[in-house]
Order: sequence, then C-alpha cells, then structure tokens
Amino acid sequence: MAERLVVVGGDAAGMAAASQARRRRPPDELEIVAFERGSYTSYSACGIPYWVGDVIEGPESLVVRDPRTFRDQYAIDARTGHEVIELDLDRRAVRVRDLEKQTDAWEGFDQLVMATGSVPVRPPLTGVDAAGVFGVQVLDDGVVLRRFLEEQQPRNAVVVGGGYVGLEMAEALTLRGLRVALVERAPQPMTTLDPDMGALVADALRGLDVDVRVETAVTGFETTEGRVRAVTTDGGELPADLVILGLGVRPNVDVARAAGVPVGAAGGIAVDPRMRTAVEGVWAAGDCVESFHLVSRRPVVVALGTHANKQGRIAGINIGGGYATFPGVVGTAASKVCDYEVARTGLTEAEATAAGFEHLSATVESRTRAGYYPGAAPITTKLVVEKRSGRLLGAQIVGREGAAKRIDVLAAALWNGMTVDAMLNLDLSYAPPYAPVWDPVLIAARKAWERVEDTLGDCR
Amino acid sequence: MAERLVVVGGDAAGMAAASQARRRRPPDELEIVAFERGSYTSYSACGIPYWVGDVIEGPESLVVRDPRTFRDQYAIDARTGHEVIELDLDRRAVRVRDLEKQTDAWEGFDQLVMATGSVPVRPPLTGVDAAGVFGVQVLDDGVVLRRFLEEQQPRNAVVVGGGYVGLEMAEALTLRGLRVALVERAPQPMTTLDPDMGALVADALRGLDVDVRVETAVTGFETTEGRVRAVTTDGGELPADLVILGLGVRPNVDVARAAGVPVGAAGGIAVDPRMRTAVEGVWAAGDCVESFHLVSRRPVVVALGTHANKQGRIAGINIGGGYATFPGVVGTAASKVCDYEVARTGLTEAEATAAGFEHLSATVESRTRAGYYPGAAPITTKLVVEKRSGRLLGAQIVGREGAAKRIDVLAAALWNGMTVDAMLNLDLSYAPPYAPVWDPVLIAARKAWERVEDTLGDCR
Repeated sequence: MAERLVVVGGDAAGMAAASQARRRRPPDELEIVAFERGSYTSYSACGIPYWVGDVIEGPESLVVRDPRTFRDQYAIDARTGHEVIELDLDRRAVRVRDLEKQTDAWEGFDQLVMATGSVPVRPPLTGVDAAGVFGVQVLDDGVVLRRFLEEQQPRNAVVVGGGYVGLEMAEALTLRGLRVALVERAPQPMTTLDPDMGALVADALRGLDVDVRVETAVTGFETTEGRVRAVTTDGGELPADLVILGLGVRPNVDVARAAGVPVGAAGGIAVDPRMRTAVEGVWAAGDCVESFHLVSRRPVVVALGTHANKQGRIAGINIGGGYATFPGVVGTAASKVCDYEVARTGLTEAEATAAGFEHLSATVESRTRAGYYPGAAPITTKLVVEKRSGRLLGAQIVGREGAAKRIDVLAAALWNGMTVDAMLNLDLSYAPPYAPVWDPVLIAARKAWERVEDTLGDCR
Repeated sequence: MAERLVVVGGDAAGMAAASQARRRRPPDELEIVAFERGSYTSYSACGIPYWVGDVIEGPESLVVRDPRTFRDQYAIDARTGHEVIELDLDRRAVRVRDLEKQTDAWEGFDQLVMATGSVPVRPPLTGVDAAGVFGVQVLDDGVVLRRFLEEQQPRNAVVVGGGYVGLEMAEALTLRGLRVALVERAPQPMTTLDPDMGALVADALRGLDVDVRVETAVTGFETTEGRVRAVTTDGGELPADLVILGLGVRPNVDVARAAGVPVGAAGGIAVDPRMRTAVEGVWAAGDCVESFHLVSRRPVVVALGTHANKQGRIAGINIGGGYATFPGVVGTAASKVCDYEVARTGLTEAEATAAGFEHLSATVESRTRAGYYPGAAPITTKLVVEKRSGRLLGAQIVGREGAAKRIDVLAAALWNGMTVDAMLNLDLSYAPPYAPVWDPVLIAARKAWERVEDTLGDCR
C-alpha cells in the first residue's frame, strides 16, 4: 500500500516539498494531499503590492501552479479552502476544516509537511478589526483589498509599519492616487537597515509625497459604524479610510505547537538541516520554521519566498528518499521603493553588536556604471566588518537602477566568510555600461579594509 | 636624498602604482616620475567604442586624472609624449624619447614600475599598414579614428576579429550609420564563450544588420594609393574604406625582455604576488604582466582595466612600504553587444578540457525579473562544472538588461571554490523587480547539480 504524505499549506514551501517528493516517488508508492486554507496554491505573495499598484495584472499572473495543474501533471491532490486546525501525533492524523461546507474530517498521514507560513502581526488596539484595516499576507488579502479599493474608493491611507511590505504598499497606494501617510515607531523606516541607510529610503518616500511619520506610535483606530476613519498616534490623529498593517509577520506555529512539535527560541518550528522536526515523519519548511543564521550563529525566523522554495525542495527531496540539507541563511533581502533599490545582507551594526561582534563600518557613494556612461546612477554601499579580522559581517545598499542586485556578491562573500581584504581583489566584471572600473562593492571593501588597518595601527 | 620611482606607462596600472606610493611616502622621501608615450594619462580605454559610437562625449570624459592633477595634487611628474625605449638594469636607468622633440635622455631610478600595457595584434598581411586600418587600444587611437570618421566619411567598415573590442566597435560603427561586416576565423564570434553561447551573440549582431562572417580568414588588404579599399578573405572580398583590427592584444614586454627582466610562459612579465619582477626594485603591473588563474592554476595574460588598477595599487602599496598581494584572477569579463549583455568567468568547456578537468555543463533559460513583472527579460546562463566534485569551473551569461552583472556572484563562487550543490542554497536577493524567486544563477546551479548527481549514479 502506498504511503501517504500530507502537506499543510499550499504555497511555496508546501508545494515545492510535494513536487520534489513526487519527482522521486510515483503515485502508486506515495499518495500526496495538500491542504490550503486560502483560494490559491503556489503563488507569489511578493507580487501583491505591484498588483495593488496596477503595475502588473492579477491575481492569475501571480499563481505559479494551480490545483488543476498539480492534479493533472503531478498527481498531487491540492485542496484549497481547507484549513488544518488540529494535529494528532498519536493518531498520525490532521483535522481538516472544509471552509466552504464548514465540516471537519480527520485525514491520516505517514509523512507530514508543516508549511503553514506566517501570520501578520496585528496590534492589540481598539478598532484594529474595523472594516478598512488590512493585512497583506496571502493572495486572498490582495483580492479583498483590491475589491475594497475599487468599491469604496478610499482617499486617505495610513500604512502602519515601515518594513518592506509597508513601503511597497505605500508606493502602490500612491500610484493609485491615494494620499498616503506612513507611521513608523523607529527613527527611520526600513529598520532592517541601519538608520543612516534607512534615512535614504525615507527621503525616497518623501519624494513620492508620502507623509512619513517616524518615532511615532499608533495608539488606536477611530471608527464610524464599524469602519475605520482615522489612526490615532502619540503624534496626533491621521485621517484614514484605509489602513494597511505592515508590522511584519510571525511564524504560524499554533497547530504544530499545540500538538507538541517543538518550537525553537526564535519562535519558529525547530528543524534540522534536512528540514525534519523533532517528531519522526513530521517535516516543516518555509515561513513557519526557524533557520540558522550563518553570521550570527543563531536561529532566526525569516519570511521570504526564496527560503520557502529552497526549504520545501529540500524537505521533498528527503521525503522522496534523496539527501539534501539547508545550511542556513545570511539575511539577504531586497526591495524597490519608488526609483530606489534597497538591499541588505548579513548583520546591521545593531545586529552585529547584539551578536557579540566588535565591528566598524564603511560607507561609500559611487555610481552604478562608469561615470561617463549614460544612466550612471548613484549607489550608496555600506559594509559592516569585524574589527581586527576584517571579516565581512553585513552589507547594505541603497541606490538607483542597477544597485540592488549587487548585494548578491556580498551575500556570496558573507557565505564564504571572506574578509574585506580578500574581497577587494575579487575578480568582478567590468564594462562601462555595468560598473565603474572599481565596482562600488570593491570600493566599499577597500575603504573598510583601510579602516580595519587604521584600527590595527591603533592597537600596535 | 629622496629615492626615485620611475613609472613606465601612464595609464591605469602605472598611475595607480604612483598614486599609492605617493599616499604612503611624501615627495621629500620619494620622487615619482611617470613616462607615457601617448597624450593622456589614467584614462578608460574601455570607453573608446562608446565615444566612437557617439554614446558618450570624449575624449576628456574618459580621462580620470590628467598630468596637471598628478602634478598639483600628488606631486607626481607625469610626462606624456615620452616613450621609454630602453632599460639598463646595471645603470638602473631608462632611456626616454621625447616624441615631440625626438630627443633621448637617460633617467635614473631606484624603483621602477613597468606598466607598459599591451599592443594590438597586427596580422603580417599585405596592406595592414594602409591608411584606414586601425587598431583600437589607446585613447590616441580613438582620437585618430574619430578624426578619420569625420574627415573621410567612410561607408563600409570591416571589423577583423570578433572579440570584445571587435563587437563593441561593430556596434559603434553601425550606430554611426556605416555598413559593417565582421570577419571571425572561429565558428562563432566572442571565442571567450563556448560556441553555443557565442551563437546567441552572433544572432544579436545580425539583428543589428552586421554582416557576420564566421569561419572566415582574412588573407590581405587591397589598397588604392595607400588607402584600404577592401579586405580579402578565403570567402571572398569585402569592400572596406575602414578596417578595425580586433584581433586581441599581446603584452608589451619588449623593453623589459631586452633588458633581461624575465618573461613567463604566457608571454607576460613574470611577477610575484606583490607585483615584484625577478629583478630587485623592478615592479610590473597591468596588461604587460601575467597573472595566476585561480581555476586553471596556470599563468595567463589578461588585458583588463580592473586588474591593471588592482595590480598597480598593490605595487604602489608595496613600494610605499606597505604589504599587499594580488592573489590572481578567475577570468571574469563582461560586454554589451546591442541590447545584449554578455559576461563570463572561469573556464569555458574548451578551457576546462585544456586545463585537464573532466567536466559537464548545464544551460538554463530564465528571466531577469519575476515573470509577471514589467521588463522581465530573457537570460541564458551556462555553468561548466567539474564531474564528481560538482565544483564550479566557469560560467557564461547572455541576456538582456540586468543579465551581465549576475556573473559577479558566480565569480565570487568560483573564487571560493564552491560546488554547485553548495551554491544552490546561496542566500541571494529576491524581489519581483530584480529576480524570479529562483534566481537564474540558482536555477543553473540546480540543473548542474542534477547533472552531477546523474553522473555519479552512472558510476555506482
């Protein structure tokens, strides 16, 4: 009789696991069922802001593979509108709610993949559940938000939280003609960057006429007849007929935790490098797990489609009888804010301090192309470097077109534990349309190394 | 009394060496004189095709620092129009010809930097010295060529040789409205790529209406009254009132070799990692030296501004009393051909075979951005990988905007000896405007690793 694999969550991690397992084991050997509480499988949640901003069509374009494709081409039974609400490890079964029929049924498994993703952080404030207050997390959120925008024609939006999603949504709503305010508790938006680099992003937002309110805390939401009409903050009230919550996400581990699947110190399901939880036959992947940070050497939770895809693939290979491991992350992320490209990898200064490193930094301004070549655009590159050793700890980039993807070579350098001294001889590509003869990455490494040398000089 | 540093060659390598030496040693301690046979110092030769094509203004924009700047800001005496024609190691002096006055003088040195660059390969064919036949190597060549284009208004150009310079010049001349033919002896232009990738470049050129003649050898140049009028090939005669020689360059080592400075197996001046030649106090840097190739483990000569700048800097640091080394190259290069971006690093298949590696390859077609995001453009990525170990040996990219700079992460992976198995978990940046959720680099690594695994399977 065939083994049965149940996958909880039908987005990137879950369906990558299902697909890889299928690749290695045919249907007569492994039955695969996936339960997804939303209406879509395998979609790009990162594309939602661009859909909201009418930069792209949606939602179908954001779906990589739908349930029919999984059934017909992969013999995977992917059931949308089905939420797993309980896991019983003794019975080796999950309780699944059919959200349309509102009926429950127990479904047995031999192997289980928890790919339950993350849930948006909702502040425990009065009015947060009012109509007009939206999280943007799953594709269905995009559907509901677009319908609200079209039917209600809101004029004043407040985005609460200046992370990637908040900034992308602020831009998207501005593109649609709304007046947008952004409220951020920290001194700068984009707290995944150091404040000096975040300030560049704030400038970009203000250039887009977004009313950026930093060092401001939301205290509640004013409503009229159950609909939001203003956001109250410790700096005054902001009119709002639309509120976007961009306060980040937390791993969705409730079902796993209730069943006794161990959750780690960072709040995600704990997994080994093969994506196995502590429970035999139970795997986990994607936003709901914690990953090892290769620089800080600590567990972290990172909600990113790239990791979800990789981890799902690795779980699926192992379930399929192969061998693959996920070594960890270095914290790479990129975003586009107006015409600005923003990227980071590794540790910020604050994160480096928290991880126990003594560090210094170097920031350089350069150009994306040879200075004389058309389209040469400004790029600011900051490196965070361990003192004495000169080892790269992190990097941040803010610039115009052609800036962001340069973070990848820094991520690769981090991955390999390179010092900035070693980095500055890296054989990077050069041609006038692509880079100055000293690539901004190399200029930054050179300046950082000079700072390291100066510090060594002080110690002698 | 101050030491005297003489620099032979006033472009990137020489002037980087001079500047770094000055940084560390003041004028009363180190006198610095640089001799440059051309009219310009510290310029970007790579920008010449764009100047010829009227994409940029020139020639001043291509000059990073002129002799006046070196004199006023660095206390470096940079003399253009002065060619070093002889080196006497016993007397520790160079014989310098003032090209304007046609007078010679001996100039003594304590330290010497040979930064004599490279010279274009000129085929020993009848008519190669005719008017209208140009090499494009130094900035003065650009000046002469632009004058010829403006005064003679040539209509039919033939570019001999399909390397980077040849292709860039073919495009530049097309942009100026000339009919351009490109003659290449090999089965494809851009022989620094494998033929399958070179074919993509040939398609791009043909799309620009360049008459691409591959597997064709030039046999001579027909002239009328000392001016070229046609190029004869083994495939017929091509009318030409302008010929560009793009047959590559060779290190300019004549003066060094004649003096007894050892030249290595690859034809460049042999240097140690600190850029010292075998002769005490004689350094060398840039196109005229040979570098260690970190993948093939062999000496190579590579004429590229990036290496010239790095090597010059390193020579200068060491001359200035510091310590720095040049570890070698991995063969990274990039170019723009029409709307196509072309890049390579490491070894091609043929180079891998020549270096003794057993290898396989994987080629994938992907997109530069998320498929649904505006401007997502095709990118073809090819990896050359060692059998069994899965170690990356080389990579080639041909694609549209956003493609070429991805070579840098592959160069960093090569530099660190990564396997494609390790690479496919690299934490590269993802956002819909910059990449699909699986970056093309990762897709290529994944496919290459699957091929390695298949091969391992065959061996078991």
